[in-house]
This record gives sequence, C-alpha cells and structure tokens, in this order.
Amino acid sequence: MTEEKLKEKNKEKDNIIFVGNKPHMSYVPVVIAILNSDKYEEVILKARGNAISRAVDTAEIVRNRFLTGTEIKDIKIGTEPVTNSEGRNSNVSSMEISLNFKK
Amino acid sequence: MTEEKLKEKNKEKDNIIFVGNKPHMSYVPVVIAILNSDKYEEVILKARGNAISRAVDTAEIVRNRFLTGTEIKDIKIGTEPVTNSEGRNSNVSSMEISLNFKK
Repeated sequence: MTEEKLKEKNKEKDNIIFVGNKPHMSYVPVVIAILNSDKYEEVILKARGNAISRAVDTAEIVRNRFLTGTEIKDIKIGTEPVTNSEGRNSNVSSMEISLNFKK
Repeated sequence: MTEEKLKEKNKEKDNIIFVGNKPHMSYVPVVIAILNSDKYEEVILKARGNAISRAVDTAEIVRNRFLTGTEIKDIKIGTEPVTNSEGRNSNVSSMEISLNFKK
C-alpha cells in the first residue's frame, strides 16, 4: 500500500467514533474536537443495541449546545450479527449518524 | 372541520406508532398489520430516550424477518422538552423512522 493510500485509509477511520456504554458527555468533546479540526468536516457516530440512544444524545447535544452549525448529513440503521460469550449467535441493531460542520 | 378533512387528519395519525417501554415484539405485529393494510403503505415509528434503540429494533425486525420489501424512507432525530414528576424541565432525544412497504 502506498503512503498516500495508507493516509487515505487512516483519514477514513479517524473520524469514526464508536459510542458505547460511557456517559454521552464522554463522546461529546471528542466529536467537537474532530469537527473543529482542520482535517475533517465530518464525524460518523456508530452505535449498537442500547448505545443507539446515546449516539443520538451525543449528536443532539453537539448540534444544539456546542456547534450549532452542525448538520445531520445522513442516518443509517442496520442489523449486525454478534456472538456472545457462550458462543451463541444473535443479531443486534446498529446505527450510523454522519454529522457535518462547515468551518 | 369538514368530514373529509377530519378523515384526512385521522388518516395521518393512524399510522404513527409510539414505541415505548414494552418489548419490541409488542410493536412489530402492529407495524406489519398497518403496512399490510390497504389503507397505508407507510408507518412512522416515534420514540424518545432509551426507547430509541427499541424503535430501531422494531424497524429492523419488520424489514428483515417479516416484510422484506420494506424500505426505510426517512430517519429524523431531534430534541424534545420534557417536564418530570417534580416539575423540572429537561430535554430528551427523539427519533422518527418512516417505513414504506409497497404491496
């Protein structure tokens, strides 16, 4: 892989935030920092299962309280297979919220 | 309001489902029944707070397991003011998923 392609790949990954079980105020500053950076004008929030509502909270707090020019560019929902600790397979809902902030 | 307008108004409301704290399999049959009816080809799932992930589960189960031709027409997120039992005001995240099923 050329250096340029590698940079391109890293660039794609850097602005994706996985929202998990921490309180939403753990994710809000990260989103703000990325959107305020020169590198990106987009952040993608990803969440699964119960964390989905936390991803929505994070997006709403960023755009209502901090960076009011932030736009919701896209929202996708889906289903992902998961294997639990006992080896059983099941499905979990997932969500992706793309936020856009033009500086 | 004329009878026609009243019908029009009820028609708009009938296919909105508020997803709350019941298990998602309480909402899935309702969505299927509405989408299968002659009256509508669209259902709007609304949810707030923690119920948001349940609305996503409901939409995903309907379109993956039951009515596989169901399309996600639109997803909106927002913030709504709420007053709790002690009279304190706060905000809660909300979500709307529009599902479309062409018979």
